[in-house]
Amino acid sequence: MAVRLSMSVSLDGYAAGLEQRADAPLGTGGEALHRWVLGTRTFRATHGAGDGGTTGLDDDVAREIADGIGASILGRRMFGGGDGGPWDPAWRGWWGDDPPFHTPVFVLTHHPREPLEMLGGTTFHFVTGGAAEALERATVAAGDLDVRIGGGAATARRYLAMGVVDRIDLQVVPVLLGAGERLLGDLGDGLPAYRVDAVRPSDAAVHYRLLRDG
Amino acid sequence: MAVRLSMSVSLDGYAAGLEQRADAPLGTGGEALHRWVLGTRTFRATHGAGDGGTTGLDDDVAREIADGIGASILGRRMFGGGDGGPWDPAWRGWWGDDPPFHTPVFVLTHHPREPLEMLGGTTFHFVTGGAAEALERATVAAGDLDVRIGGGAATARRYLAMGVVDRIDLQVVPVLLGAGERLLGDLGDGLPAYRVDAVRPSDAAVHYRLLRDG
Repeated sequence: MAVRLSMSVSLDGYAAGLEQRADAPLGTGGEALHRWVLGTRTFRATHGAGDGGTTGLDDDVAREIADGIGASILGRRMFGGGDGGPWDPAWRGWWGDDPPFHTPVFVLTHHPREPLEMLGGTTFHFVTGGAAEALERATVAAGDLDVRIGGGAATARRYLAMGVVDRIDLQVVPVLLGAGERLLGDLGDGLPAYRVDAVRPSDAAVHYRLLRDG
Repeated sequence: MAVRLSMSVSLDGYAAGLEQRADAPLGTGGEALHRWVLGTRTFRATHGAGDGGTTGLDDDVAREIADGIGASILGRRMFGGGDGGPWDPAWRGWWGDDPPFHTPVFVLTHHPREPLEMLGGTTFHFVTGGAAEALERATVAAGDLDVRIGGGAATARRYLAMGVVDRIDLQVVPVLLGAGERLLGDLGDGLPAYRVDAVRPSDAAVHYRLLRDG
């Protein structure tokens, strides 16, 4: 069992642009960060977009990131439905009735809510006890499989600073956002040492795999 | 005539580690940032280390970065000799009698000093009138050739924020420093738009060339 994190960042290190909002959840310019994955066969399959899509390195990486995940953790903003206020029960996430997780998903929140069972094997659990409790519950739910820290950037940074992330799949996209929400850096002394295990460039992104040392 | 900047940064965006000091001018872990260039034929030739050295992409990039430069600008810390205090006339830079610039070099400082003529065509000029004045003087000295912002990171950020840099050669080295001095990001509205003109990976670094848009 490992804790894994996958994020796409701009060349200047941002996982999301400024002014994140409902109609632009990745902020200004942020949608460019995920262009590498949108057309891949794996992305289309996991998002219910049917057959087809590109194969090759980008697709390989998309599949590696998705494979072997038994549970995910999301921040409240990543799940959406208001900026941290009480829940509107009509909000069931950004992803429609059949979200692309297909596993239990633990959503960090300050507001209790009953679990939401969706189609395709995704159940959203709402955790009010903090990041460590969410990780404990996700680890139990994942069993022998891995836990994925699903984002957004603030949640990713939180788990990085806790020193619990074993593997980081980082996609560096050749755009500059200029400002936004950073993924790496200034995370304090909690950050364990990582070694770069693989560097694989595609036309759309440079794919890094970082493994925790020791 | 173009204003060019070349910097090596860690995967988490740092151009130098923490605790920069005389015996570790790039700070903790910072020397790893320049490993890609040290063995190249071009680096050896420009640093008086004789013939030999590697050829290939890293060497090609080292040559591109050095070619066509008519003058350089350095921050005080990059030139060295104390952390911004009055000059010790015995300090003639880090590079010995024959520095690797082979052109006029303009050093930003608060303390006047007579020009220093070195071997091999390098003359250090000390500029107390600020970054814009240094750029003006370097532009005149370079004639038809390009001006290089030679660093360090703080000086590079200053010129980036001024919006005057036409081309950035950025080498992303697959190491994490965790903390240190950033190159890109949070530079304010002065930063012009850049497009990524080339992405070329070697075993030691991913080489990006960014050109100012329009």
